[in-house]
Amino acid sequence: MSTKEKVLLLGATGATGGSILDGLLEANQFDVEVLVRPSSVEKPSVQQIKDRGIPLRVSDLNVSEKELVSTLQGIDILISAIGPHDLLQQKTLVKAAKSAGIKRFIPCAFITVAPPQGTMLLRDEKEIIYNEIKRLELAYTVIDVGYWHQISFPCLPSGRVDYAALVPNTTIHGDGDAPNILTDIRDIGRFVSRIIADDRTVNKYVYTWGDILTENEIMDIAEDLSGEKVERQYETIEESEKRLNDAQSALSLDPADPAKRTLVYITQYIYSKYVRQDNQPHYAKYLGYLDARELYPDFKPISFREFFTEVLNGKGKRPYGH
Amino acid sequence: MSTKEKVLLLGATGATGGSILDGLLEANQFDVEVLVRPSSVEKPSVQQIKDRGIPLRVSDLNVSEKELVSTLQGIDILISAIGPHDLLQQKTLVKAAKSAGIKRFIPCAFITVAPPQGTMLLRDEKEIIYNEIKRLELAYTVIDVGYWHQISFPCLPSGRVDYAALVPNTTIHGDGDAPNILTDIRDIGRFVSRIIADDRTVNKYVYTWGDILTENEIMDIAEDLSGEKVERQYETIEESEKRLNDAQSALSLDPADPAKRTLVYITQYIYSKYVRQDNQPHYAKYLGYLDARELYPDFKPISFREFFTEVLNGKGKRPYGH
Repeated sequence: MSTKEKVLLLGATGATGGSILDGLLEANQFDVEVLVRPSSVEKPSVQQIKDRGIPLRVSDLNVSEKELVSTLQGIDILISAIGPHDLLQQKTLVKAAKSAGIKRFIPCAFITVAPPQGTMLLRDEKEIIYNEIKRLELAYTVIDVGYWHQISFPCLPSGRVDYAALVPNTTIHGDGDAPNILTDIRDIGRFVSRIIADDRTVNKYVYTWGDILTENEIMDIAEDLSGEKVERQYETIEESEKRLNDAQSALSLDPADPAKRTLVYITQYIYSKYVRQDNQPHYAKYLGYLDARELYPDFKPISFREFFTEVLNGKGKRPYGH
Repeated sequence: MSTKEKVLLLGATGATGGSILDGLLEANQFDVEVLVRPSSVEKPSVQQIKDRGIPLRVSDLNVSEKELVSTLQGIDILISAIGPHDLLQQKTLVKAAKSAGIKRFIPCAFITVAPPQGTMLLRDEKEIIYNEIKRLELAYTVIDVGYWHQISFPCLPSGRVDYAALVPNTTIHGDGDAPNILTDIRDIGRFVSRIIADDRTVNKYVYTWGDILTENEIMDIAEDLSGEKVERQYETIEESEKRLNDAQSALSLDPADPAKRTLVYITQYIYSKYVRQDNQPHYAKYLGYLDARELYPDFKPISFREFFTEVLNGKGKRPYGH
């Protein structure tokens, strides 16, 4: 009989969930299973997981609590890396996790450090789930990761890093001097594996980071490593605010449109990171977060410099989803 | 020039605010001033404060942020013990406190330990203010006190303690075995004076307590001290739930009615304390609260037994407001 803790992961085919799956397997100290929807079982991305020998549990989330409790049988730790549009679907899952005696629930967080309410729609919906968890006194850990290296680098005049860019970009916001918490996608799962095995993080918020960098510092690193001069674009604070307001107005007229919703997420990220300047260690500390680097001083995350060197060497990978 | 910290107290004429005022003065380490509305200046309760030599600052709360900033000039610590129906009026005050450079804001908490959202309307509205504080990165401390000794004792067949009872009562809810955090009103201010002078409580939640007692234990103490037999009434969990649902339905038909709102507060307190059993140290710890008794082991609060002995000796006092 295995003495390893049994971990069930929801959202394993996403970028964050994929990193978590890799990190859990790499840690080699958990029995890992993956929760997928019936409609996803035949997808190539799910088949790939199956082909790696990882057991699947199949359920929709909009079923009864009782049915979900049965799906969660025998699980110690439940990790949700559900997509940004489906956050509120975790509601019944939280209840079922409590009823099933889950030892720790990791709700879908994995974003920047931001105010609990009123600044980012994405964060507001996560907060609804955190509050439901707290209402049930379910053991939890909230893990935020800042922004990814993979969506924080500028494109170069030569075009040689465009292949790895989700959206080609050379914009500096405001004066470019706002520091931001950054984590390489691939480190998310490694951090998660440490955090879920650590009693100090029960019922706590934790943030991970590989680097804390401003946009100017990122540009300098990119220029230093590439020998190229980045063609910097500038967006003023006022322009960022206007883009945010426009996106929010458009969504309010059509609240169910996923593209408009995504644009609100993006412009709110920019507003939070560069105008409010939330995504920083001092604000994380104020909000009560633990610093994963202080918890695990031996862990060496991938620095932005290391990441961008790989991209320059053709070893980058365009991220998908979030 | 005084080196004492300057404390401004809002709500000093209420039961909680009155205790805080007494506690601040007793501590003799703060310069205390009181914030009152223009319409209250002539009230006897405000005149009594003035007669004690305590300076008044006079302002409404629904004025501009700029005007409030001017009112807060020179204040180090702002304490709000605003009434339960006016909680959301703290919104501009929070902004002004940030702009005025207030070193620590104590928002109106001072209730039982309860979930941040979805269980108690009173707590939900406080949470809106806490979230606004966090959005502004304003230094704060949330101080909850559980339920008061003064509204937790049973009446006796002889009628000799009725004079001190807000609502005469001998009810036991459910099996009467749910422990509850209790603080004597008079200790609230003493705890507050310790907490606001303590760097360990910055940006934290703290709960105070004089006793942790179940209703059965309270009845036993009352019988033991009085020599009388309490005529216990029993309310089942189902009855408590029905009373809660009825009160909530009535309020939903008439959301602005303060009496219906108050009845919702009362039935939600009962539901939270005895059905959910929230108001306990283990849940406070789960929610991240510090225990004031652990912080101040030398402080000897008034026990329920001491309090009820006073009531039996005719030295009780009927509490007003909350």
